[in-house]
Amino acid sequence: MRAIDVIVRKRDGEALSRAEIGFMVDGVTHGSIPDYQIAAWLMAVVLRGMTAEETAWLTDAMVHSGVRVDLRDIPGVKVDKHSTGGVGDKTSLILAPLAAACGVPVPMMSGRGLGHTGGTLDKLEAIPGFRVTLSLDEMKAALRRTGVAMLGQTAQIAPADKTLYAMRDVTGTVESIPLISASIMSKKIAEGIDALVLDVKTGSGAFMKTREASRRLAESLVGIGNASGVRTEAIITAMDAPLGRAVGNALEVAECIAVLRGGGPADLIAVSIELTARMLVLGRVATDRADGERQVRAAIASGAGLERLRRIIENQGGDPRVVDDSGRLPTAPFRQIVPAPRAGYVGRVDAGLVGRASVLLGAGRDRITDPVDPAVGVVLLAKPGDAVGGGDGLLELHYRDSARRDAALALLADAVTLHDVAPVPAPLIVDEVS
Amino acid sequence: MRAIDVIVRKRDGEALSRAEIGFMVDGVTHGSIPDYQIAAWLMAVVLRGMTAEETAWLTDAMVHSGVRVDLRDIPGVKVDKHSTGGVGDKTSLILAPLAAACGVPVPMMSGRGLGHTGGTLDKLEAIPGFRVTLSLDEMKAALRRTGVAMLGQTAQIAPADKTLYAMRDVTGTVESIPLISASIMSKKIAEGIDALVLDVKTGSGAFMKTREASRRLAESLVGIGNASGVRTEAIITAMDAPLGRAVGNALEVAECIAVLRGGGPADLIAVSIELTARMLVLGRVATDRADGERQVRAAIASGAGLERLRRIIENQGGDPRVVDDSGRLPTAPFRQIVPAPRAGYVGRVDAGLVGRASVLLGAGRDRITDPVDPAVGVVLLAKPGDAVGGGDGLLELHYRDSARRDAALALLADAVTLHDVAPVPAPLIVDEVS
Repeated sequence: MRAIDVIVRKRDGEALSRAEIGFMVDGVTHGSIPDYQIAAWLMAVVLRGMTAEETAWLTDAMVHSGVRVDLRDIPGVKVDKHSTGGVGDKTSLILAPLAAACGVPVPMMSGRGLGHTGGTLDKLEAIPGFRVTLSLDEMKAALRRTGVAMLGQTAQIAPADKTLYAMRDVTGTVESIPLISASIMSKKIAEGIDALVLDVKTGSGAFMKTREASRRLAESLVGIGNASGVRTEAIITAMDAPLGRAVGNALEVAECIAVLRGGGPADLIAVSIELTARMLVLGRVATDRADGERQVRAAIASGAGLERLRRIIENQGGDPRVVDDSGRLPTAPFRQIVPAPRAGYVGRVDAGLVGRASVLLGAGRDRITDPVDPAVGVVLLAKPGDAVGGGDGLLELHYRDSARRDAALALLADAVTLHDVAPVPAPLIVDEVS
Repeated sequence: MRAIDVIVRKRDGEALSRAEIGFMVDGVTHGSIPDYQIAAWLMAVVLRGMTAEETAWLTDAMVHSGVRVDLRDIPGVKVDKHSTGGVGDKTSLILAPLAAACGVPVPMMSGRGLGHTGGTLDKLEAIPGFRVTLSLDEMKAALRRTGVAMLGQTAQIAPADKTLYAMRDVTGTVESIPLISASIMSKKIAEGIDALVLDVKTGSGAFMKTREASRRLAESLVGIGNASGVRTEAIITAMDAPLGRAVGNALEVAECIAVLRGGGPADLIAVSIELTARMLVLGRVATDRADGERQVRAAIASGAGLERLRRIIENQGGDPRVVDDSGRLPTAPFRQIVPAPRAGYVGRVDAGLVGRASVLLGAGRDRITDPVDPAVGVVLLAKPGDAVGGGDGLLELHYRDSARRDAALALLADAVTLHDVAPVPAPLIVDEVS
């Protein structure tokens, strides 16, 4: 088989065979196909697409480029959650301890923030001492001890995806539902989970801007998961405004702790409970969605979720006292409030702009190798629908450097729109695929 | 400017700016854009296309990646011919001496054979001693002395094209009218010519299989040439059967000499005269097509064309005695005839299969660095429309190695079809664009 022939067949819009797709992925894994041929093939895939069958084969080949973790000796139905990425999207730190407290083991390999969206690993590392680099043995030990392992993708997990993703990032071939689906699902399937809940974001702050595109992605992901023996369902949630109020790593950890204490913003609570309830049903500890929600709310009310987070942090080397005292998290030296220019109702709070501003402050990165500042970020003092008086705070910047603050302020000038009448609230959970 | 942004814009079907195209070509020329980004961009161009304006800018950027030769101090209107490539397509060796004999200087940079199509340089090198590697100064000296310079593309001519072509060859991005047009025209414009006649081949043995695709290519090429100040016209000629009877380097040189002597196959004579007559009109030595044809026929009849070929060969270090004695050309040690299985009329003689068989015998190559055997090849003993008896010769293989002969014979088994009634002759010159 020759790479050039596979490239030409895809260029001409043909469906590739399982063997052809396996050949390309093998070539990526072993470096036996040159970068330029991989790049040409990826662009042909972006522009010509792949069938559901091809996408499943691609995913499977990427899973088999590394190990598929065997978690059968861990009792229980192992369930993970994956989000396609948003601003202020911090549900993992809430739902993992809650699901575990309700009896569902959660093996969770996460990523880092890139561009305007944050990443779970960066948030976890805002907790002093928290170690996200676990070996597969340490992952299993954590699951046995606390019911949760939160870690970065190990080198054994879908190595072809790592290489392909780096290539896609520099060749304009990120935007492809088959490629995105295979990338997400290969890592999740390789984790060794039995079931998966997906939170597919939709809107201006999401990768998929329209509900239709989000639904297509959700259907692709759910199809691949179920075809590979991982029971998978998806909800599609709005990502026009940031989720919750906090955007920035330590700020978000503190907000998660607030939710586990029974407080926190309503939208964040709603999405977190929806996702956790579904994890409980998939994990066979709840009979249905309503039973799942009841159990999740009970785990918040009893403090079982918070207690579980304490154990997870302690087990992975972090300072568990942050659970009782958010002041132990890194804090930025300076704060500045963006006031409302006039009285009105908050309409749009642009998630993309808030996310970009947060990157400018140092909370995120544009290159995966850049460091992040755990302390800085943006807090929404007003959420869409809130009434504000002229001069009331809209946003609060937590910053370290005044030049970065000024750059963020410039970007945020248009982030919040005010209306004279109260806007009709938009639905948060807009669709589901199962 | 960033390559990734240019790639993404083309991926999304947008027209690139002149600056963006120049940036990419500069990156190719100086190696400042990595191969994988070039490859992704090329695939996006293949699948999204380029406007006529973008194609002209691409061509211009490729011309300016090297030198545009200045031939203004050579008297006369300098005219070249370019063919898009066929089997047995040997008109250059006929028309260059004829046009020069009629007063049109011909600066001709040619290529080597690749795949099933031959190349002028390989044919010239079948003449003992003939040197195709001329410097630009030697090219000018040859033009002054004989009115013709036949040489390979020098390193100064469109170096970006050389790099891009090598990349396209291995990334499945050859098949694109904008990329093909820019590649062809950048080299021709850089040659320093005033006018150009194109022979765009169409049919099963050509790069463009349909008349429509060939016409689109011809229009693209003519548009670029005229936009850049090179008066350009094209004819579209059939390439379903080989042109003439000889396929193979020395065999083709001998056939060209036969045409210049007033003999040779009718189809080869017709195409050669059509192209040369147009060169004479563009070169302002003929008033119209008919006057051009009259002058060309006179140059054949008088022997002026043959005499000019002798001078060209001598001037470039070759043995001029081949003009009088084709036996001085390399000859293969063995011959084998493929007989007609039954009586009938010759219908199709598949140019692609004959070309591939010729490559198998050693006359051509699949990699540009492979050597070729000047002596071997295939001779058509019967042309389409000919009546043959059972056992009459259809093809004659000139070979050196019996294993290669057997491989060629296997391929040629289906190359010639026989009919019970005489087929209606298909037109040879099917269209023109000017």
